[in-house]
Amino acid sequence: MHRAVATRSPMPVLSGILIEAQENALRLTGTDLELSITYSVPAEVIAPGTIVLPARYLSDIVRRLPAGRVGVMADLSSSNVTLRYGRAEAHLIGFNADEFPRLPEVTPKIELTLDGELLREVIKQVVYAVGQDELRPIFTGVLLEVADEELRAVATDTHRLALRRSELAGYEGQLTNIVVPGKALSELSRILAGGEEEVRVAVAENYIALDSGAIRMTSRLIDGQYPDYRQVIPGSYRTRISGMDTDELLRTVERVAIMSREDGPVILLENSDGTLVISAQCQAGSIREELPATIEGEDFKVAINATYIAEALKASASQEITLELNGNYGPAIIRSKDNLDYLALILPIRLA
Amino acid sequence: MHRAVATRSPMPVLSGILIEAQENALRLTGTDLELSITYSVPAEVIAPGTIVLPARYLSDIVRRLPAGRVGVMADLSSSNVTLRYGRAEAHLIGFNADEFPRLPEVTPKIELTLDGELLREVIKQVVYAVGQDELRPIFTGVLLEVADEELRAVATDTHRLALRRSELAGYEGQLTNIVVPGKALSELSRILAGGEEEVRVAVAENYIALDSGAIRMTSRLIDGQYPDYRQVIPGSYRTRISGMDTDELLRTVERVAIMSREDGPVILLENSDGTLVISAQCQAGSIREELPATIEGEDFKVAINATYIAEALKASASQEITLELNGNYGPAIIRSKDNLDYLALILPIRLA
Repeated sequence: MHRAVATRSPMPVLSGILIEAQENALRLTGTDLELSITYSVPAEVIAPGTIVLPARYLSDIVRRLPAGRVGVMADLSSSNVTLRYGRAEAHLIGFNADEFPRLPEVTPKIELTLDGELLREVIKQVVYAVGQDELRPIFTGVLLEVADEELRAVATDTHRLALRRSELAGYEGQLTNIVVPGKALSELSRILAGGEEEVRVAVAENYIALDSGAIRMTSRLIDGQYPDYRQVIPGSYRTRISGMDTDELLRTVERVAIMSREDGPVILLENSDGTLVISAQCQAGSIREELPATIEGEDFKVAINATYIAEALKASASQEITLELNGNYGPAIIRSKDNLDYLALILPIRLA
Repeated sequence: MHRAVATRSPMPVLSGILIEAQENALRLTGTDLELSITYSVPAEVIAPGTIVLPARYLSDIVRRLPAGRVGVMADLSSSNVTLRYGRAEAHLIGFNADEFPRLPEVTPKIELTLDGELLREVIKQVVYAVGQDELRPIFTGVLLEVADEELRAVATDTHRLALRRSELAGYEGQLTNIVVPGKALSELSRILAGGEEEVRVAVAENYIALDSGAIRMTSRLIDGQYPDYRQVIPGSYRTRISGMDTDELLRTVERVAIMSREDGPVILLENSDGTLVISAQCQAGSIREELPATIEGEDFKVAINATYIAEALKASASQEITLELNGNYGPAIIRSKDNLDYLALILPIRLA
């Protein structure tokens, strides 16, 4: 939960971790008011109590503790804690727990349960495409849409878009449509260690809570109307390039991008006698590579951001992919052969 | 040699790597005029020749080449090179080799041969203590002194000093006294892969050349008089603390330093009833640890930079160390039990 701790804040208590010792567990919570993360760990609690300790010092010390038992004694009246280990003693000056902002009680309007592994995959497949521009907050989030017995996750920075559908067979709850900060989902996929059987999801008016048992994350939702992503995904294509090995294409794109211009990693995709040719040039030289592929439809010469292609390929989770083009300036679509639920869209670049 | 390439320079050719194809070897050289590094690799040379290629592009491409043979064709008149691999072709626009500054021909006044492993150890044991202040260039170098059948390496930033002696049994050459840039030696110990049986060292008026066969490094020496380090190393001590496990002391120092003040990692060493106590405090709290040790001599209470102690301990290459104190403000000396040829000196801090 250390990662949810506010690093600079007018509220000093937010630099702390809330520690609640109750029954047979220690609950550790960090928050920056947008995002809260709580870990629960089993502990032998001699006397229950609640305190806030400075996050950085606490985690630095805990990380470096020698092997062996650690005694923790808190003086709740002074908010001070003593750790005893070996022939050593550390004192930490904490904050009064009453100052720590409480997480909102999420009264869910939607509740559902997802497989933990699936949730990690869904996040990984779309979160790379969120925008970084804080002035357009809606694009820094991931749209989660529940409808038609499906969960649809969408992210776009307006230059590219990633979409992942997942079945929610038998789901009979309410439909919904929320935008979750990409940062919160990235953090969640990092801390879900793998092996979580299920994650309970509860959505309230302004919050989402995700709970795996040991880890609970609560994040504020992003306000505003997410644009209709369906409108930008073409229903047809003018050229279809198939039979490409994802890894081989990725390595070619990364190699060619080395010689792209300094002002952006632009590479050129074109067909030459039925072969896919990928090339780039800059002041220092050029690269031109041919890739085996099956090309159907119109000829093309598309300039495209190599980083966007590389990120979309890495997220595809498929050995083989298909690329659909819609003219030299229309959206390019990457579909994975083994995973029809994933789609990436990239807008080509108009070269001057 | 990529690391010796100038990153920003008014001479564009210095951003390149000189490639000399001769007989059965390719010699690759990078230089920033201070430091030159040459690698020799075996190669099937069809036609000999010399060219300069842009370092960054060349190394990026070579690192990402697919498995298989690579054909290299150079057009010496235009300084262009073509690489052919698989179904791909890369062109690199190079520089005329005549523009590349030639390494000085080092006419040695001193020549000696060192064991490669020993040289790496000597560098590691002193180079951490060089100064970073470019305004006092002499302290950014390592003093290498050959005398009395010994090689002595010394580095100091004026707050601490590291000294390593090595036997040069049977050495009958001239005595010398040179200051080699710390950066060059760090680089050398990084690129000496280990397993080098011997490194030939040649010293000329302004240059040192170190040659392991596959790797040759030439560095300009630092001008100026290195201060007499013997004067600052005390011949006696007032307190001697022995019987300390190096690793345990290091871990304690690093743990205690967590709670040191934000303006510097200052920790306090003192004796309390015959025990070594290491402590620190700051606004967020405090740590106090006791360490088993044998203490002889005067009582003490020494404030000292924890990073300096930690770096000196890591360089000691010894399981057990001894600490000699000379009052609360006199130099503290770390000696390693298994390696009497190593010594680290640290000046304590006068607390206000």
